[in-house]
Amino acid sequence: MTYCVAIKTDSGLVFASDSLTNAGIDQVNTYSKMHTFVLPGSRMFVLLAAGNLATTQAVVKRIRDDCNFNAPVNLNNVTSLTQAVDYVGSLSSDVQRAQAARDTASTNFEATFIFGGQIAGQLPEIYLVYPQGNHIHESGVHPFLQIGETKYGKPILDRVIRSDTPLEQAARCALVSINSTIRSNLTVGPPVELLIYSADALDGGRRLLLSDDHPYYRALGDAWNEGLRQALNNLPPFEWENQPQPLQVVATGKQGQMQG
Amino acid sequence: MTYCVAIKTDSGLVFASDSLTNAGIDQVNTYSKMHTFVLPGSRMFVLLAAGNLATTQAVVKRIRDDCNFNAPVNLNNVTSLTQAVDYVGSLSSDVQRAQAARDTASTNFEATFIFGGQIAGQLPEIYLVYPQGNHIHESGVHPFLQIGETKYGKPILDRVIRSDTPLEQAARCALVSINSTIRSNLTVGPPVELLIYSADALDGGRRLLLSDDHPYYRALGDAWNEGLRQALNNLPPFEWENQPQPLQVVATGKQGQMQG
Repeated sequence: MTYCVAIKTDSGLVFASDSLTNAGIDQVNTYSKMHTFVLPGSRMFVLLAAGNLATTQAVVKRIRDDCNFNAPVNLNNVTSLTQAVDYVGSLSSDVQRAQAARDTASTNFEATFIFGGQIAGQLPEIYLVYPQGNHIHESGVHPFLQIGETKYGKPILDRVIRSDTPLEQAARCALVSINSTIRSNLTVGPPVELLIYSADALDGGRRLLLSDDHPYYRALGDAWNEGLRQALNNLPPFEWENQPQPLQVVATGKQGQMQG
Repeated sequence: MTYCVAIKTDSGLVFASDSLTNAGIDQVNTYSKMHTFVLPGSRMFVLLAAGNLATTQAVVKRIRDDCNFNAPVNLNNVTSLTQAVDYVGSLSSDVQRAQAARDTASTNFEATFIFGGQIAGQLPEIYLVYPQGNHIHESGVHPFLQIGETKYGKPILDRVIRSDTPLEQAARCALVSINSTIRSNLTVGPPVELLIYSADALDGGRRLLLSDDHPYYRALGDAWNEGLRQALNNLPPFEWENQPQPLQVVATGKQGQMQG
């Protein structure tokens, strides 16, 4: 499994992904799930990938080949993010269909992507590309998208992420979201990749590779644990905790009768 | 869907459940998923239910009928928690088999339960009863059990809950776990039911019914939001945030060449 998240704020984009892949429980490996395509000063795109690894690798290879061999439509010449994400969705469908045509075992070749970035003169955008090749953009109220094992890390994003969240704050929130997922689910694992893109920079952004023992990643995990403990300690006490405790009173009720 | 959680600490047990049931998205209702069976001074049991509502209602009815009609094995005369949970698992299997025998539409009659409590002279225990009727107890390292929509609310439990967590603290943690799940998932909803049982009390415990607008539940949600914001604000800054920001530099790289 996989967990990837992208956030769009007023000041830029954040992309984060784990790196664990597995086929069954005893075939585990580490692959980057974050792929960047940058034409400095002109355009930058980021692709986060979840699902069948052969499918996602083939899609990434096709994107790079189309650029290198100057295909009629490629990420170097698309004129909008919409055209770019349509192109990625089509590639994904094509690859899945080609793999299914050779299948003999009802294999699941599906892949899901987050695709985002910016073209010069246009606004930054992020999209979620379904296995069917179609796509959605982020919600205005909750401006983030997730793929893979999305549930563990969703509550913190739901509570915190807004359009006006500062970019570095959003990035730390993404790291916490992934860190929580890794702690709670064996199939999502380090290293964590993080890319922070400032709107209109049209560069590759700041990219961090955070292994388990990376000083910043450890400091972040420790600080979050401590912050959660404090948050829990600051929750309001139940009303009986404010009062002197009475002696233990045996609850009344007719002996021999079950009470609902 | 449903979300229920039980925690076992050195000082007692905590049970918490949501109350939303749905069949499809337009048939939504509110049912208690927390059922208590108390013989004051002798024994107390709590059953939390997830899954097919007809199954869970039938199981609860059978448990009460077996007590009322003094069946050979019932919760009034079982001599251990193990015997009690075996009995509940058998009832669940029986009910599911009876429903499946009349089925014409490949319906899913499965139900999952958390069952726990205490018998006088014995230790408190909690169990998760699978749809197959067999069961597991909590882990010593992470002494809690969850059923239903378990993922959203798991990270906070993983980070906080230990055997020596004070009972009321564990109860607040369970409420936060459910509150987060309700915020992130439409199929889990209020009111939240909470039962706090002090070891050896052999009573019905302290039971709270927390609707969305219950003053304590609102105060808890607000305090948790505030605590999370503070925790996020106290995370370590990225190293470049500690330094004076350089002027924006356009990234170098040969124009016209895609960079990975």
